[in-house]
Amino acid sequence: MSGFVSFVSAGPGDPELLTLKAHARLRDADVVLYDDLAAGAILDHARPGTSLVAVGKRAGRPSARQEHVSRLLVDYAATGVRVVRLKSGDAGIFGRLEEEIEALRKAGLGYEIIPGVTSACAAAATAGIPLTRRHTSRRVQLITGADVDGQLPANLNFAALADPDSTTVVYMGKRTFPALVVKLIEHGMSPDTPALLAESLGHADEKLARTTIARLAEQLAQGVGPATAVVLFGALAGDER
Amino acid sequence: MSGFVSFVSAGPGDPELLTLKAHARLRDADVVLYDDLAAGAILDHARPGTSLVAVGKRAGRPSARQEHVSRLLVDYAATGVRVVRLKSGDAGIFGRLEEEIEALRKAGLGYEIIPGVTSACAAAATAGIPLTRRHTSRRVQLITGADVDGQLPANLNFAALADPDSTTVVYMGKRTFPALVVKLIEHGMSPDTPALLAESLGHADEKLARTTIARLAEQLAQGVGPATAVVLFGALAGDER
Repeated sequence: MSGFVSFVSAGPGDPELLTLKAHARLRDADVVLYDDLAAGAILDHARPGTSLVAVGKRAGRPSARQEHVSRLLVDYAATGVRVVRLKSGDAGIFGRLEEEIEALRKAGLGYEIIPGVTSACAAAATAGIPLTRRHTSRRVQLITGADVDGQLPANLNFAALADPDSTTVVYMGKRTFPALVVKLIEHGMSPDTPALLAESLGHADEKLARTTIARLAEQLAQGVGPATAVVLFGALAGDER
Repeated sequence: MSGFVSFVSAGPGDPELLTLKAHARLRDADVVLYDDLAAGAILDHARPGTSLVAVGKRAGRPSARQEHVSRLLVDYAATGVRVVRLKSGDAGIFGRLEEEIEALRKAGLGYEIIPGVTSACAAAATAGIPLTRRHTSRRVQLITGADVDGQLPANLNFAALADPDSTTVVYMGKRTFPALVVKLIEHGMSPDTPALLAESLGHADEKLARTTIARLAEQLAQGVGPATAVVLFGALAGDER
């Protein structure tokens, strides 16, 4: 296991939503590199004496930060210690995993990916609803609302997103949601489409609000707090618990 | 906790991909209702003496089966024992969860949903690739390839599915994949779009094949085996490990 990195999915926040495999990798790690988003109680699963390295990447920071994280990762792995790179949610979804994998490949280092619970699944579970329903909600789609510069990504497929027969979950999408909703309505989506805002999932200050895309856009246009959030919209978001 | 059901996500097959919370619910259960798909080593996490009830729902069976499962669930829960309804993958994704929730609601019984690792995340992790990439793979979408009658669901949004800037994962989609690919190509998708077939994820006979949508359609048109599978397609599916 020399020169090897385990990309470990931390899940959506609740430390009980770690997988058994993620738990085992954390317990056996010599070094854990983590983002602010994945911090907290999850790190308690590491052994005492494990090096916990905060790399503090956050949406909106300049991309030099990502290069720095990749370099740190390669440097630690090259020493032959057991390196865990902890990623919030599922590591493969909006985690910029590709850039870190590419750095390891270039350095000739091995890796594995331990999948995890992504926030879309956690948000729906907390709301007591499924993400799919036969006939009416046949497609689930996940997008990020914040590109590396914090803006709504250019060239999103708005026609696909405005489809009333799908359930859409927007990651890191609070700030840009008003701009997204303008596009959704332009592409024919009803302003009354049910929406859920799930904030601080799995933490003590977890909050869930049921509304519509138009009302949520109006609310978020007034300003947004710092809590991490996902927005879920589509017919299923209107289901009562 | 009288008259209460825990919908527990079993993850994609590997028992190590259970969450700590799912593990705890299984350990505390008096009765576990499970499908064929979620069986095996995962049930070893239940205490000795727990009633393990195979409800054997599978895609393609007549829908009366689903009503039978819902009735069993209500009957067990109404006795006040701790009931776990185990669902493969994430319970909220193509698990027909809505029908069982509806039955509990009608009976005035409570429930919770424990989210889990969905097969899309596990397939990508096994392949060593992320599901998203900045600029080129900005949208992840999940569909099922088999409706309740085993056919490709009617009225899928083929334009959304044929988008080259997305990563699509098809659950239970081996048999209908040739029909899907005809539609994708009609909607402008390149026949050379990379595709991955992941079979028996997390089991001893796990298999991963890298190909293209057209070649995979051709192969699957020759006949398909009984192994559970997901198909992942989009630019990222072409990444080397």
